[in-house]
Amino acid sequence: MKLYDNIHANAPIRVRIVLLLKNIPFERIPVGFSSERNRTNPTSYDALNPQGMVPVLADENFVIWQSLAIAEYLDELFPTPPLLPADSRGKAHVRSLALMIACDAQPLANFRVREFLIREFGLPDAEMLRWVRHWLAESLTDYETAIVRHSTPGRFSYGNSPTLADVYLFPHVLHAKRFGVPLDAYPAVMRIFNECMAIPAFYNARSEDAPNNARAGK
Amino acid sequence: MKLYDNIHANAPIRVRIVLLLKNIPFERIPVGFSSERNRTNPTSYDALNPQGMVPVLADENFVIWQSLAIAEYLDELFPTPPLLPADSRGKAHVRSLALMIACDAQPLANFRVREFLIREFGLPDAEMLRWVRHWLAESLTDYETAIVRHSTPGRFSYGNSPTLADVYLFPHVLHAKRFGVPLDAYPAVMRIFNECMAIPAFYNARSEDAPNNARAGK
Repeated sequence: MKLYDNIHANAPIRVRIVLLLKNIPFERIPVGFSSERNRTNPTSYDALNPQGMVPVLADENFVIWQSLAIAEYLDELFPTPPLLPADSRGKAHVRSLALMIACDAQPLANFRVREFLIREFGLPDAEMLRWVRHWLAESLTDYETAIVRHSTPGRFSYGNSPTLADVYLFPHVLHAKRFGVPLDAYPAVMRIFNECMAIPAFYNARSEDAPNNARAGK
Repeated sequence: MKLYDNIHANAPIRVRIVLLLKNIPFERIPVGFSSERNRTNPTSYDALNPQGMVPVLADENFVIWQSLAIAEYLDELFPTPPLLPADSRGKAHVRSLALMIACDAQPLANFRVREFLIREFGLPDAEMLRWVRHWLAESLTDYETAIVRHSTPGRFSYGNSPTLADVYLFPHVLHAKRFGVPLDAYPAVMRIFNECMAIPAFYNARSEDAPNNARAGK
């Protein structure tokens, strides 16, 4: 497996966690970004991924973009450990949690959006920071409510082993830390984050420690 | 099944398409919105959905929020017609297409984000409109590229019957039309949109025609 990756991006961390948890060997291929896409002269990476974003997973000649599609694909091909509960309701609940972050939080705080706000609307850095912090905090408040009110009590977001929900939550908390969002208001989220930090697959998937082109697993 | 819904919202259209395609009886329950959430005095709807957004599906006492989690749940429980291909690669591809819209397009153009830009940054209406049109056009360009370059040729986004990709694309094009995005640049997208319009489940799921509390199917 090849993972097209960028050390500064948040979404590839999710895929690295899945690959490491399942002990799937992979090669990281670093991808650079410019702030604005050049539609007239697309790069070879644009030819691989129509969105021009990371991550992309290449399983030989088969290419997948979008981290959740990649995670579901890997979970189907490498079922151990499973990252979704076996029953339909459990699956729906875990997917809801992951999607809260994947859809309504991370896309609002990512690089291309921050760049657009600064470049097109002349937003000062402090206002851009307020934008990012607002959506990160909103999503953490919602997630905290969701797990406190709706989840099966356990060590992780759903039960006692990591699921796709935690795969999404963990990098999201790292993102919030990087942008200085106060985290005291989210005790259930932070308890789960600390449980994840104790698992090598989560700890080693962080950008801070991950060397480029590292081979993981066997 | 009960669908918590709002006539002005885009995401519930996706769930209505799935319910109608699979002929699942459902009751629509209209939900009102204010521009800013009141965290101190949450409504009874906030108690149902930690994000306070629509859609929510209630299958008796089991509640799911996030449209893609709902769609996958319904596809598992009511497998006919299937909305995902049978093979892992086909599934990954269709999910990638749906997620391009679910994650990187719709959340940037939705009501709470538009309200935030106007309220917090004093963005004039024309600039807000430029923001919405920019992200809608970007995502349609990416989707057009994705289906032209990567998909199995067929009548729909993937093959000759509707999948979850079309369930996401159809309301997205309606959204783009409402915001005046020129659609000539997306001939493959518009060909698929017109195929969908000819299917009663898609046509009748549109907000324009859907009566409140309509019972669908048997």
